[in-house]
Amino acid sequence: MEKKIQKTNLKSIAQLLLEPGFDRVLVACHRSPDGDATGSSHALAYALRKLGKQARVFCPDPFGREFSYLTEAEEGLFSFEPAYFVTVDIASPEMLCGAQFTSCIKVALDHHRVNTVESEFKYVDPEKASCGEIVLQLLREMNVEFDRFLAMALYTAVATDTGCFRYSNTKEDTFLAAAFLSGYAQEGDFYRINKAMFETKSALLLSLESYAASHLKTSCDGRLAYLTLSLEEQAKLGASYSDLDTMINVIRQLEGVKACFVAKEREKGVFKVSVRSEQGFDACDFCRTFGGGGHTAAAGCTLEGTETDITARLLEEVERRFA
Amino acid sequence: MEKKIQKTNLKSIAQLLLEPGFDRVLVACHRSPDGDATGSSHALAYALRKLGKQARVFCPDPFGREFSYLTEAEEGLFSFEPAYFVTVDIASPEMLCGAQFTSCIKVALDHHRVNTVESEFKYVDPEKASCGEIVLQLLREMNVEFDRFLAMALYTAVATDTGCFRYSNTKEDTFLAAAFLSGYAQEGDFYRINKAMFETKSALLLSLESYAASHLKTSCDGRLAYLTLSLEEQAKLGASYSDLDTMINVIRQLEGVKACFVAKEREKGVFKVSVRSEQGFDACDFCRTFGGGGHTAAAGCTLEGTETDITARLLEEVERRFA
Repeated sequence: MEKKIQKTNLKSIAQLLLEPGFDRVLVACHRSPDGDATGSSHALAYALRKLGKQARVFCPDPFGREFSYLTEAEEGLFSFEPAYFVTVDIASPEMLCGAQFTSCIKVALDHHRVNTVESEFKYVDPEKASCGEIVLQLLREMNVEFDRFLAMALYTAVATDTGCFRYSNTKEDTFLAAAFLSGYAQEGDFYRINKAMFETKSALLLSLESYAASHLKTSCDGRLAYLTLSLEEQAKLGASYSDLDTMINVIRQLEGVKACFVAKEREKGVFKVSVRSEQGFDACDFCRTFGGGGHTAAAGCTLEGTETDITARLLEEVERRFA
Repeated sequence: MEKKIQKTNLKSIAQLLLEPGFDRVLVACHRSPDGDATGSSHALAYALRKLGKQARVFCPDPFGREFSYLTEAEEGLFSFEPAYFVTVDIASPEMLCGAQFTSCIKVALDHHRVNTVESEFKYVDPEKASCGEIVLQLLREMNVEFDRFLAMALYTAVATDTGCFRYSNTKEDTFLAAAFLSGYAQEGDFYRINKAMFETKSALLLSLESYAASHLKTSCDGRLAYLTLSLEEQAKLGASYSDLDTMINVIRQLEGVKACFVAKEREKGVFKVSVRSEQGFDACDFCRTFGGGGHTAAAGCTLEGTETDITARLLEEVERRFA
């Protein structure tokens, strides 16, 4: 039986959420919650509680310690049997990893380009850099009284999904959202969030980034930078596979680099390759050659073979494209 | 003979600059021009030319290659005998290194807390994160028609002086300025500026930052991180003294660090020490112990002695303060 999905405007959703019967709400965000998921969900649940409703956040995975200034708002809350589910920043049922939820989602708020969540009410605006901006708009429609907590939660969402206003998704609206939230924060609040989100690294991460900077190789007259990490090298570095995610951000900083890749051996003979590129090199198209895909500036693929072999294949394809 | 300095509002300065007789203008910015100096000066000179006046930028030092998208606007301009001088982002005559100018400055626009420039008209607003925000306000007072060049020049000023909206000087007005400028830029303009200003590093800089991350030492239960660089080590790294400035930004990222210093040997037995700190550790007060000074979160001092000796003295003082 197909469910009716009502694509609607924020005003209708605001009215729905304000109804006295709309109570006992679970605000769900996606697994491996990032700053946008964490900030958006905590802001919305907090705002609903501010209106006298029972509401709390649900996530399949635990929130990071770095978000404790948000998650502590839910400590000691009484538990309740949820009557309504609202999803934020969730593009697909898989991101929630629980089919039992997907059958009863009342409202879905999101900013991903493709959204396959089945919900009665749905508001998706892919022009927004963060889901936090959508929650901000919704709370303003609801005439929620803004305060310091909401400012910090939504600033976290906006700032993290834009790399602190550096990424190309940053728009006029993003800055206006940050300006609005500034009015409710205390001096130093946003600075401390920025410091924690963008300028704090574990000793392991610092040493991995140091390794990336000193071991990167270049090719194609410096237009390509790359790094390969065998299982053996990962073990030597004391790193697990998931620790290697940020190394690509180090090597892409090298002056003159137009494309870069990091090939990480995930299991013996299987390399997961992350590719980043600047204008003029289509990372997605490049990865499609190897059965992968992604975005124009950030894509990925998987290659099987020895380190030497897969590196040669990748280099050959890059050279062909730069020629 | 004392000059009359008129502290005035921006409206009066706007009126002055709009007068037909206000022509042949040199817009001066400070030596070692950063993004704010470069962006503010180029925006103002360009806006005056847009109004049909002769105007150009003056700086005692050359502008960085990374600002070529701004400096190219002045290529091929006819030279002229300046009749008026306007300074932007200049706090003191020393920052202009030329006493011949300081005697005839008509207008000074600045955001430094202490401004000792002698000019007939002066507008200083230390609440503004960048001088670019003041120039933006002035151009709006003057009803200058904004365009892509002005958006890029003033965005450069605002973004660089706030570390891309990360520093604590970022305020509601900063975001509003960026939002306003967004409306005149083309898609990708601000992203490319951010990439060039914040995410592009020379091979030498990458290797120095890698060295800093892998050679930093910690003390005081991880609350202090530090690094010392003797002349010999600097030579081994292929670095000149001025290349070492960003290393402190690497070590201050280590999780748990509340204070950090980098001691760079400038000449045999003379160490210039840069200190950065978080809330709870006054870097300025710390540096005063050694005859230096600065701000609460960023300060400096100079110590004489061997590497071992000066390190011991610095560590002892840090330990005393953390105790």
